[in-house]
Amino acid sequence: MSKKISYLAGAILLASTGSTFAKEGMFTPEQLPQISADLKKTGLEISPESLSDLTDFPMGAIVSLGGCSASFVSDKGLAVTNHHCARGSVQYNSTAENNYLKNGFLAKKIGDELPAAPGTRMYVTVEFSDVTDKILGKLDESVTGRERFDAIVDMQKQLIQECEAEPGYRCSVPSFYNGKEYKLIKQLEIQDVRIAYAPADSVGKYGGDIDNWMWPRHTGDFSFYRAYVGKDGKPAEYAEDNVPYQPEHVLKVSAAGLKDGDFVMAAGYPGSTDRYARLVAVKHTFNWLYPTYIDLIETWIDTIEKAAPEGSDARIKYESTLAGLNNFLKNTKGQIAGAKRVGLVERREQREKALNEWLSSAGMREAQLETIAKLDDVEKQQSALSKQTFWYRNITRPQLLSAAQRLYRNAIEQQKPDAKREPGYQDRDQSRLKESMQRIERRFDATVDKAVWATFIKQYLQQPAAARIAAFDEALGLSADTSPEKVDQILADYYQQTGMNQVDNRLALIDAKPQAFKSSDDPFVKLAVALYDTEMENEDRAKSLSGESKALTPGYMQAIIDWQKSQGSLAYPDANSTLRVTYGNVLGGSPKDGLIYEPFTRLQGIVEKDTGETPFDAPAKQLELIKAEKFGPYEMASIDSVPVNFLSDLDSTGGNSGSATMNGRAELVGLLFDGTFESVNSDWDFDPKTTRTIHVDTRYMLWVMEYVDGATNLIEEMDVVK
Amino acid sequence: MSKKISYLAGAILLASTGSTFAKEGMFTPEQLPQISADLKKTGLEISPESLSDLTDFPMGAIVSLGGCSASFVSDKGLAVTNHHCARGSVQYNSTAENNYLKNGFLAKKIGDELPAAPGTRMYVTVEFSDVTDKILGKLDESVTGRERFDAIVDMQKQLIQECEAEPGYRCSVPSFYNGKEYKLIKQLEIQDVRIAYAPADSVGKYGGDIDNWMWPRHTGDFSFYRAYVGKDGKPAEYAEDNVPYQPEHVLKVSAAGLKDGDFVMAAGYPGSTDRYARLVAVKHTFNWLYPTYIDLIETWIDTIEKAAPEGSDARIKYESTLAGLNNFLKNTKGQIAGAKRVGLVERREQREKALNEWLSSAGMREAQLETIAKLDDVEKQQSALSKQTFWYRNITRPQLLSAAQRLYRNAIEQQKPDAKREPGYQDRDQSRLKESMQRIERRFDATVDKAVWATFIKQYLQQPAAARIAAFDEALGLSADTSPEKVDQILADYYQQTGMNQVDNRLALIDAKPQAFKSSDDPFVKLAVALYDTEMENEDRAKSLSGESKALTPGYMQAIIDWQKSQGSLAYPDANSTLRVTYGNVLGGSPKDGLIYEPFTRLQGIVEKDTGETPFDAPAKQLELIKAEKFGPYEMASIDSVPVNFLSDLDSTGGNSGSATMNGRAELVGLLFDGTFESVNSDWDFDPKTTRTIHVDTRYMLWVMEYVDGATNLIEEMDVVK
Repeated sequence: MSKKISYLAGAILLASTGSTFAKEGMFTPEQLPQISADLKKTGLEISPESLSDLTDFPMGAIVSLGGCSASFVSDKGLAVTNHHCARGSVQYNSTAENNYLKNGFLAKKIGDELPAAPGTRMYVTVEFSDVTDKILGKLDESVTGRERFDAIVDMQKQLIQECEAEPGYRCSVPSFYNGKEYKLIKQLEIQDVRIAYAPADSVGKYGGDIDNWMWPRHTGDFSFYRAYVGKDGKPAEYAEDNVPYQPEHVLKVSAAGLKDGDFVMAAGYPGSTDRYARLVAVKHTFNWLYPTYIDLIETWIDTIEKAAPEGSDARIKYESTLAGLNNFLKNTKGQIAGAKRVGLVERREQREKALNEWLSSAGMREAQLETIAKLDDVEKQQSALSKQTFWYRNITRPQLLSAAQRLYRNAIEQQKPDAKREPGYQDRDQSRLKESMQRIERRFDATVDKAVWATFIKQYLQQPAAARIAAFDEALGLSADTSPEKVDQILADYYQQTGMNQVDNRLALIDAKPQAFKSSDDPFVKLAVALYDTEMENEDRAKSLSGESKALTPGYMQAIIDWQKSQGSLAYPDANSTLRVTYGNVLGGSPKDGLIYEPFTRLQGIVEKDTGETPFDAPAKQLELIKAEKFGPYEMASIDSVPVNFLSDLDSTGGNSGSATMNGRAELVGLLFDGTFESVNSDWDFDPKTTRTIHVDTRYMLWVMEYVDGATNLIEEMDVVK
Repeated sequence: MSKKISYLAGAILLASTGSTFAKEGMFTPEQLPQISADLKKTGLEISPESLSDLTDFPMGAIVSLGGCSASFVSDKGLAVTNHHCARGSVQYNSTAENNYLKNGFLAKKIGDELPAAPGTRMYVTVEFSDVTDKILGKLDESVTGRERFDAIVDMQKQLIQECEAEPGYRCSVPSFYNGKEYKLIKQLEIQDVRIAYAPADSVGKYGGDIDNWMWPRHTGDFSFYRAYVGKDGKPAEYAEDNVPYQPEHVLKVSAAGLKDGDFVMAAGYPGSTDRYARLVAVKHTFNWLYPTYIDLIETWIDTIEKAAPEGSDARIKYESTLAGLNNFLKNTKGQIAGAKRVGLVERREQREKALNEWLSSAGMREAQLETIAKLDDVEKQQSALSKQTFWYRNITRPQLLSAAQRLYRNAIEQQKPDAKREPGYQDRDQSRLKESMQRIERRFDATVDKAVWATFIKQYLQQPAAARIAAFDEALGLSADTSPEKVDQILADYYQQTGMNQVDNRLALIDAKPQAFKSSDDPFVKLAVALYDTEMENEDRAKSLSGESKALTPGYMQAIIDWQKSQGSLAYPDANSTLRVTYGNVLGGSPKDGLIYEPFTRLQGIVEKDTGETPFDAPAKQLELIKAEKFGPYEMASIDSVPVNFLSDLDSTGGNSGSATMNGRAELVGLLFDGTFESVNSDWDFDPKTTRTIHVDTRYMLWVMEYVDGATNLIEEMDVVK
């Protein structure tokens, strides 16, 4: 205990430097030179300018997995990410005989890797250029609604098409600052991704859903992929004679690690935040949407658990769905609790009032005030639309129906020239559509799908008449007094008569013409056709409102940027799945009065938590090593142990999972994999007091690799530095 | 936050003095001079010798409430204890119009107090003398079994009778070191106890069952009783013209309070511990008894909750029963978790091995080794008996049955001369028996009692034939294939035909002769008569084994005492509801890897926790005061707040509730009211790393009294020192 307490001294030293609050900001690499002074002051040792060059070190080593982040750690294409990001690929290769989830997987040499799950890609960002003028240049504010929406999408598609003319690349044109700016992002798309090493679930998923979002944490949330390309060095589909990809830049891996208060930064692909959301949207979300979702999700989970009892084959298929729903539920509850704690609504009210006052006092800002007032009006309409289409979204959730709807939409879009098609249905999207139709196979069970649909429909039937969807009622023969038994009967017929549960039938429909759908006898296909007009009406209303919003948000965001600048701070765009850098320090915290989170957890904490039952069932070998105190060169003297996970004050959100956590020399010191429960509301309103990000320490990764799993081949392949 | 972290510096300074582990030991006052050096080193400023004189300051101010502890804080009989110790009295006086639980109660002047709940007594220990020789002097080891048991009880009764010859006193002869020593304890028994002040539940029970055993804590667990005596200054029953009792010694109340690391001691009446239990008993308890109880209690709670739905009158009557069961359940689960965490069974095994080795090596200890081996054999038989009588104990739990059993036993005992009666049925016990028969009224509902009985009987019927009780089966007409429906029918008749649910009928039976029971038509009375022989057989077996144990434990305990002495430490007796002193320091802790408990909580933590719903519904006035930072003279600068609760490393257990927590000058600095969840296993095996005791800080008490409740009359009455 003396060690434990003496090492808190670090926190006190840190306190005296004044840096005890979390650092807000998910900056685009190009923004970093503008804050180079603070980066250096906080502890960055390399040049801040170098961080802004995506093709230079270290950003050249940072990759996206689409939903997760990763980084190259060897010149043979070895990339490290979170265990939870690669677990689908481990599961994909697991069988009863070779249960890699349970036992872990290690390719002892290059070439022994297993193919990742279908659809797994690795994206290396190679270009990042401003195209705002190309997108918005010809659109004055008078172009609004659906017209504006379509004009922007058309231009985005055109830029993407030009960019993707060079094979092996995937391009996108996301908006920044909610439509104020547009960037063209060009990414090398590596298609042959293989799983090189994943520790067992009992290490990589230690603590499971119970510890999810929690601190203290002891999760070995890391795995290794290897990127393969064709013999010509260019991206290629999986082929036996592909060769490891040679990234231009790789991260060194630190075995020295960090201490409390050290500088850290993470580079990755955060998904989305709503830091600039208007009060109207905040109220809609927290007063109506989230509470409504909580009830819905709880019923949904309950329905799946009853229809797929524990130990059944169906349960295995729905495990990841259940995990996702439980995660969503916990997150949403955390957001509501966090919003209450920080007074989100009141704070947003105050912010808008303060912004208005500044705009009024700054003079010449009447136009912006007017824009903002108009924007709020659009936001109100969007909230109303969200309520109106809420039940439509729920009753179309069954997998077979949404598959039929996507396929029918695809058939209709195929009739148009490629450039005119809805994004997601262009030629470039066809292989993904196919993969998604294949994937249903492993996550679908008719009894469960039917039970979920029945639950939603029965709730839907209790809604007032205004909330009912005529096309749906007509197609299924529903009315306000349809009995629950009758609903069950109707749905039983759907699942009995459909062929959509067969993968071949689904794949066959990818190239079918609309007429084939219209004349189909399949009940789900018929329903998809019947719902098409409603779907399009909803879409049109949403796109029109979005177009109106897009005409107004640039003015609002400019006001925010100017206002923040007037206060000496640099505004950064909301997260949008593009490459961002966040920086700060290793830092514990106090989530509530009387309680302190230490910044590092120890190996001994695993023994403390271990019950021998999932998710607290560390491998026997690991427990023995800990009890024998075999810490090797990975021991952190100040905590008398190997550090397992650590906390920092970095600003992160979903999508950041797997992000390289780097020290001031841009050496890998950990992987970002979670935030604390008290942090989830930061997506809406960054709370520096409670926001903490959770990382797995490289010293724990290396310790597991060397002592538990014998992954010495990978340790030798990497550039491990002390 | 800077304040929070800088104040951790205290913990580090403390660490450097080496005192970071909890202090084991619940010492009798007479033991304290033997450890005066350590008491002084730890921070006691007054003379350690003075602590051993029960009639001197400060021990003269310490009182027992029978199950709780309290202390005098004014020369007008004002005594402070925990809110949860006095809550029954608040509830007793509450009506729909005057809901003192909800609103709190304050007597604005002396004489305005309300009578405490029937049976409330205050005991002031005035004498404490060794009577071991009188009890055991004539009993050599050959006297064993039932004979030894009865001989000891007879001598205890005789000493009690002599001692209680002086009216106004209550005496007892508890054993120390499990029968190795006996002390005669003489206590002044104050019968007229009145409630002077209790904050509202929303302060005094803040956090409720959710926060029970938990840290961080924000409970204002304090209340004030006032002791009254007759005009002659002697204890007397409640009477309008009684006068406040004038204690010879009172505690000063500190408004200066403590800081991290300060010396603290608590004086009170801890109930029971099992620190010297043999491995046989430990295994029986943790491998069989506790796990079995957990299932049983969960079913029991479930049955009550279903039979007494929320909002029903029945639920109100069973609230305290439910609270007790839930508390027991949480405690038992905590004990099991703690036993696993510290490795209780393995540690006890090692301790017994080490003791045996010491005894073997010390020479001339063969007799002790033999005694211990015999003791273990008796312990095995006791464990077996506990299993055998387990279901008898459960099927006799219904309140009407156990009342009938106690009344019938009383009638039989009344036939004997007073000195020969079973303790609990002597003349001195009759008023308590009467009170307990009255009390049933407020905690009984026939539907619930019947449902609970039915649940137990249905489980009992599933036990193997060997576990069945012939007399019970015969009386109720049960057999292995009695259907659950039939059980319900049988019980329905019991509750329809009985008069035991009427308080008058119960009271009438207090003076009835055995023949009146034998000829009674009341089904519960008949059942009590039918079960009497079984009850006596069980009792005889238990007393015989206890007698055998009593012949052996003195030898075992002497071995323990000698062994500990050889290691330089002073053995203290297990807790037995007698006055004890425990001392140590204000100290936070680390209950698990990565988490730190701060030693003090703050007023702001109440606002953080507050949801507006019970049990997190602080009074609006209190929340406003906190938000306005009106801390007054009670602010602790280092935490920027008024400290609410604090942690110490004191050794405590149930019964310590309400104990005066004192500083080195024996000024009241708080009230002990709970232990952390991680501490509950310390009853079996004191774990210095995790054991922490929770206190309410006098600064919070005074702050609530002055600012929230305006109890200035009491503040003025006390001697508040800075």
